[in-house]
Amino acid sequence: MRKKNSPLIETIAVGSELLTPYYQDTNSLYITSQLNDLGLKVRFKTIVGDDHASLLSCFKLALKRADLIFIIGGLGPTSDDMTREVFAEASGRELEFRNDLLDYIKSRFQRRGLIMTSSNKKQAFVIKGSEVIENKVGTAPGLWIEDSGITAVLLPGPPIELKTLFESGVMPRMEKYRKGFNARKVLKITGITESSTETLLSDLYPKSPEIELSVLAYPGQIEVHITGHSFSSLENAESMIDPLVNSLKGRLKNHLFSENNEELEEVIGKLLLKNNYTLSTAESCTGGLLGHRITNIPGSSKYFLQGVQVYSNQAKTKLLNIDEDVINQHGAVSASVAELMAEGIRKISESDFGLAITGIAGPEGGTKEKPVGLVFTALSWNNGTKVEKNVFVGMRVSVKSQATQKAMDMLRRQILFKNTKQRKDIL
Amino acid sequence: MRKKNSPLIETIAVGSELLTPYYQDTNSLYITSQLNDLGLKVRFKTIVGDDHASLLSCFKLALKRADLIFIIGGLGPTSDDMTREVFAEASGRELEFRNDLLDYIKSRFQRRGLIMTSSNKKQAFVIKGSEVIENKVGTAPGLWIEDSGITAVLLPGPPIELKTLFESGVMPRMEKYRKGFNARKVLKITGITESSTETLLSDLYPKSPEIELSVLAYPGQIEVHITGHSFSSLENAESMIDPLVNSLKGRLKNHLFSENNEELEEVIGKLLLKNNYTLSTAESCTGGLLGHRITNIPGSSKYFLQGVQVYSNQAKTKLLNIDEDVINQHGAVSASVAELMAEGIRKISESDFGLAITGIAGPEGGTKEKPVGLVFTALSWNNGTKVEKNVFVGMRVSVKSQATQKAMDMLRRQILFKNTKQRKDIL
Repeated sequence: MRKKNSPLIETIAVGSELLTPYYQDTNSLYITSQLNDLGLKVRFKTIVGDDHASLLSCFKLALKRADLIFIIGGLGPTSDDMTREVFAEASGRELEFRNDLLDYIKSRFQRRGLIMTSSNKKQAFVIKGSEVIENKVGTAPGLWIEDSGITAVLLPGPPIELKTLFESGVMPRMEKYRKGFNARKVLKITGITESSTETLLSDLYPKSPEIELSVLAYPGQIEVHITGHSFSSLENAESMIDPLVNSLKGRLKNHLFSENNEELEEVIGKLLLKNNYTLSTAESCTGGLLGHRITNIPGSSKYFLQGVQVYSNQAKTKLLNIDEDVINQHGAVSASVAELMAEGIRKISESDFGLAITGIAGPEGGTKEKPVGLVFTALSWNNGTKVEKNVFVGMRVSVKSQATQKAMDMLRRQILFKNTKQRKDIL
Repeated sequence: MRKKNSPLIETIAVGSELLTPYYQDTNSLYITSQLNDLGLKVRFKTIVGDDHASLLSCFKLALKRADLIFIIGGLGPTSDDMTREVFAEASGRELEFRNDLLDYIKSRFQRRGLIMTSSNKKQAFVIKGSEVIENKVGTAPGLWIEDSGITAVLLPGPPIELKTLFESGVMPRMEKYRKGFNARKVLKITGITESSTETLLSDLYPKSPEIELSVLAYPGQIEVHITGHSFSSLENAESMIDPLVNSLKGRLKNHLFSENNEELEEVIGKLLLKNNYTLSTAESCTGGLLGHRITNIPGSSKYFLQGVQVYSNQAKTKLLNIDEDVINQHGAVSASVAELMAEGIRKISESDFGLAITGIAGPEGGTKEKPVGLVFTALSWNNGTKVEKNVFVGMRVSVKSQATQKAMDMLRRQILFKNTKQRKDIL
């Protein structure tokens, strides 16, 4: 047995489709996340096709260099699937037929009114000396093979089967490998750039190797991940990161919109619901993305009344009663039109808030004065309207996405802090 | 030198972040696609962190088992980046400092008005005996090391640098490994299930190993990929798959919406533009996703006039003049309301086509008569209105996505074939 205290872990994803340009091995991300929670890290990730020679060499190598091996996929009923057979060969073991497994597989087919094909019989073979890990959502059981301090776990490839089986059957067996407990916290922020975030937080980067801080940037959103690792308990891990989390929150202030892994549309949904407010939207360049995001939240019909996508100028005047002269004077992409859009949709819909977006998503349509990425976002409520001028960088879809993020953030800040910028500030 | 005619290829993605739950190695998909075009396949994909021992063992292993090794990442200026140094060690070579590279790196900084940090000096070191592959979009050059029939290529990790460098500097050098020419074709279809597609095409699966056919299914869309491989020329590869492509098109008929890798919103955009038609939309359960997809296409303002997201019943009556009695009698999710929505938005906007969606996206709101996933899609034009009743399977976001796909497909079929089902067929 090698290095008992920190097992060398390798994942092997099996499948010729994973060696094409079309498929990613996403299962190993899930397994990595689960192992991290036990204080364990993955050292090697291997991806290999369904051919005998390649599988055999990968399995033999893993048995030589790793203490814990997770082999994912290739347990299905077709002739391509040979993980079970080749791993038996690599580890010098035999296969044995298990009647109880065959009965279980048969019963799964019967329950769905189907007849088991003869090819499924293959899945009733197990590697001698292995523990069977029950698969409650598929026909391929997992296998746990432990010998001389090396453990190999054979897992089915379909993600839903893998996750269900891993949680119920693998994690309990993994307790003996636990090196500690991980506490994780994700702070989601918006309204501040990645570099400003880095500068703001630069002196808070933890010195201790037990605490990790990483900043991940997406268009219009930044996530600050904090991980704490304790040898003794989850509570201990949590209390290790608490001071850092609190310092971070003190720095991030109103930019922080979620510490519970929510999307911004979820956050504003909860705020609207809690305060019994209603919302309507008027979109130009985003074309419906704002409404789409808001209505991705189940139950959004309780607060989202309606939206309009006023792409043409005629729609702006007819649907929202915007004076044609204002459009002619300031242009459809202007603070004035954004303001009138927000006010217009609020009045028409009789909702508490009206949220509006007009801008130039690109790639065409930009000028020197009004470049691609210029977007005005506006929020109207019963005694005020605010407009913000933004210049977003990126492709059309990214500009649309950032614009909706900004609009929703204006609403969030107004409800929570009443502190979005005044219109006169930006004109 | 091993097996000259079919080199064993391994990709090694380097980076500790690739061993966390947050990052995928996407670079290898790009490389795989490029290699496939040369008639080459990847045999092993390895992912390894930035630690000396792991890197060294992976590199040594690859030098032993592979003929062509692509090592991606770890060429940056920080102390974490050690691909160059460790590969030199693994292959028994020395590093040498290249003044010309330092000058180039310095000039890149100068052009951007920045001063080069001393850590970037590291990037001017190359492995002795290697060819430098110029990096036009970053500071880390690529390295091509060829010895005794084994070739290793060191490549920068940032995807834009990798792609630019691979195309300009690696592909030309790869010509001598070319095993042939690949012709690829993707047929995109909608309006038919995956299993129906499989049945429809089952007898067309090619017998020859030079032609590959694969069917990839997404919610509301299926892609049929055809790859032909010829030893002599691209033209030959194309003419090899032509008969199959034609047979497939004959079977797929009107379900085929693109053979040029377009999205459905792009296809209907072109059809509208070509025929000088305009379109407006009325959405309930999709909340704006239809308008969002349509306006993702640059230039869509030429044919998309406006949309409304009539989430509340009040919005349906007020914005679209739908009789309250119809909503009360049939319900907001009904063929009658879908029909009136499509007609209403077409009249209000004075557009040629009105497209409408009303349904139950879930997870709440379903009943026995009207289950979650029930969606009515309707299309109205100057002398007719058609409605289709759909029951989509999946989560809220997937139901929304399938609904927009179906609505756009009704428009496509109407313009091209005038053959969507009549309203009376489905009531």
